[in-house]
Amino acid sequence: MARCDALGVAPYSDAPDMLFRAYLTTAHAAALERLGAWMHEAGMNVRLDPAANLIGRYDGENPDAPALIIGSHIDSVRDAGRYDGPLGIMLGVEVVAALHAAGKRMPFPIEVIAFGDEEGSRFPASMLCSRALAGTLAAEALDVADREGTKLSDALSAFTVRVDRSRDAVGEGRPSLALGTSAFLHALHPPALAFFEPHIEQGPVLEAEKRALGLVWGIAAQLRLEVTISGRAGHAGTTAMRLRRDALTGAAEAVLAVERIANEMGGDLVATVGRMQVGPGAVNVVPGNVAFSIDIRSSDEGLRDEAAARILTAIGEIAGARGLLHSCHQVQDLAASPCDSQLTQLLEAALIDTGHSPRMLVSGAGHDTMVMAALCPTAMLFIRCKDGISHNPAESVMAEDCEAALQTMLVFIEKLGERERG
Amino acid sequence: MARCDALGVAPYSDAPDMLFRAYLTTAHAAALERLGAWMHEAGMNVRLDPAANLIGRYDGENPDAPALIIGSHIDSVRDAGRYDGPLGIMLGVEVVAALHAAGKRMPFPIEVIAFGDEEGSRFPASMLCSRALAGTLAAEALDVADREGTKLSDALSAFTVRVDRSRDAVGEGRPSLALGTSAFLHALHPPALAFFEPHIEQGPVLEAEKRALGLVWGIAAQLRLEVTISGRAGHAGTTAMRLRRDALTGAAEAVLAVERIANEMGGDLVATVGRMQVGPGAVNVVPGNVAFSIDIRSSDEGLRDEAAARILTAIGEIAGARGLLHSCHQVQDLAASPCDSQLTQLLEAALIDTGHSPRMLVSGAGHDTMVMAALCPTAMLFIRCKDGISHNPAESVMAEDCEAALQTMLVFIEKLGERERG
Repeated sequence: MARCDALGVAPYSDAPDMLFRAYLTTAHAAALERLGAWMHEAGMNVRLDPAANLIGRYDGENPDAPALIIGSHIDSVRDAGRYDGPLGIMLGVEVVAALHAAGKRMPFPIEVIAFGDEEGSRFPASMLCSRALAGTLAAEALDVADREGTKLSDALSAFTVRVDRSRDAVGEGRPSLALGTSAFLHALHPPALAFFEPHIEQGPVLEAEKRALGLVWGIAAQLRLEVTISGRAGHAGTTAMRLRRDALTGAAEAVLAVERIANEMGGDLVATVGRMQVGPGAVNVVPGNVAFSIDIRSSDEGLRDEAAARILTAIGEIAGARGLLHSCHQVQDLAASPCDSQLTQLLEAALIDTGHSPRMLVSGAGHDTMVMAALCPTAMLFIRCKDGISHNPAESVMAEDCEAALQTMLVFIEKLGERERG
Repeated sequence: MARCDALGVAPYSDAPDMLFRAYLTTAHAAALERLGAWMHEAGMNVRLDPAANLIGRYDGENPDAPALIIGSHIDSVRDAGRYDGPLGIMLGVEVVAALHAAGKRMPFPIEVIAFGDEEGSRFPASMLCSRALAGTLAAEALDVADREGTKLSDALSAFTVRVDRSRDAVGEGRPSLALGTSAFLHALHPPALAFFEPHIEQGPVLEAEKRALGLVWGIAAQLRLEVTISGRAGHAGTTAMRLRRDALTGAAEAVLAVERIANEMGGDLVATVGRMQVGPGAVNVVPGNVAFSIDIRSSDEGLRDEAAARILTAIGEIAGARGLLHSCHQVQDLAASPCDSQLTQLLEAALIDTGHSPRMLVSGAGHDTMVMAALCPTAMLFIRCKDGISHNPAESVMAEDCEAALQTMLVFIEKLGERERG
């Protein structure tokens, strides 16, 4: 936690008055230098991969065995909390530090990874770095630029990290990074034993049930829709109320229908209108068009799809009753992504051994874990956070919960070692 | 109408695919050159005043008598119709052309004016030009720049119009305009007999009642509020429905309350939420704050204020029930602005004489007339338009209605002449 806090301010943030650490920025480089030193101190060899992921490696009894990868992302959203991402990396470092202090080696190498981009705060793409590692990145996905017009390839070439306190020093600059975006294709990881991601829950369930830790069943199915409602723009002073075809009052009804239907569906279903643009958007003009997004998630794809169908029906009825036109199109449809059942059983056993009654959760948020499932079996551990708040400077965790996560992880690794030794 | 149509396209528009004629642009200059030629042809001397208003003057029997000013604005909103503004100017030109053709002089001079800015499409201020003429413009109101950073004073200095077919040619460039914004103070008009503005209704009443023309009682009282609603931003995937404090669902209820209360109040009251900004405005984030405008108008200030009070109470209740914070502040409070009752009676008599049963209307929109009331008595004539549509390329009027307006104006001027002759 202290290390997460240390990385919460300049020079580890790109903004002076808040935490904002985007991919391939000076704040990202500064954070990797600091993290590299901590990894080295914990007994790891440190390298920077061609996608600017920092990887600390603690060799196992058999150096050629596929590695257990532990980690999460080092980047953040704008005005972020300090634990979403970094806490998972620091727990990986602590696990290795504990093994190293005990002079203990596992049958497999352990790699602790800090993914450079998960949030997608800089480029119009997210989870770029785990996708590079897992080999699921199409070459054209790299042809992107940030809001200032800087291309991903140029940002990569300019990125410099000195981790000169590590044993096989990444050292003097930018080795493979000078390759530009084609370097991403060289970030593909060799076959791995497993990927394990500890992460704050970013939700309120564990706190409400007074539990420190939760097992993650997988990532919820997600549907994103883009809706437009069109009426007729008119002068706000001269268009009588009964003659209006106001796109915003129609959209307002739609927003409330999304909320009502999500409440009625129950379960773990959530539905959100997060973005809305009102046109022409002048104080003295009756709105003629409104565009908005709808994000619907549930661990149960059937429930999710039923909610979407009911929402679309409701919007059609609202538009019809008001003489408005509407269109809806689906912009994203992610199936539910379960974690590996064997690894999750091992994690469940570790939770029981360390005195926790296991609680299975579904992650409403996406995580690198869902991407890494293409490379190897995955497991994920949730850590309780205050009031479910995340993506917000008020994000907060408790030291005893982090300690509990560390102990559970050590037992989990022990059990994985037993399994591997046969 | 043909002249309005001619000014509806390039080079009289600043945009290639729509009508957009902003103040002090090349489209504005081109329109004034064309209009100046028409004024000259109708028998007028043409001058450009220091605020870039084009004024055609048709002398009366007594050249020193205060003038009857007829006119409206030549500028437009973006993606405008062709008649909002220009039709009133063209009707003034036609009135003078008719008098000139008949070799007739009135006891007073007639001036036809094309105000350069009424809509406020370019600078963050509106009715700059009638305010300059009426002497109600504070010097600091001129310290403005457009979105590209061009200062009003620089735009004025650069503005060039050649109206070299007029008798006392404005001619070779930019006479008093080179003075910059201080020139505005020299645009003050000497005392005038009256200001008369013909304008399309921009509303549906005349059409619904099958009337070509309407008398304008005055401009409706107007109140503008800025409302902010704050909740708590949260992850759209991890924040359970029952734990949300969603600023947008609260704002949606407020938008519907504004509509409901306006409908319940009845009369000529209208209330509009025209602008809304949702923060942080990401697809995957529950909105934490929403800001929106409310515009409330009625000819009855009491009704308007009662509506505002009910709306504010409703927003307070909505916010309270949802655990949201809110703030409301008033950004504009314009009292109702009646036209001169004697002139309006004269216009009513002219309507009766030309076969129209007079219908008194309140203008929901603001007009230069309300500003000119500071200089002299005012009267305003509304002309029926299709479906009440304005600020839209679909704006449409009928030739016979324009002809009726012209005949009524000629009778009105005759009656005004009789009154002045005593």
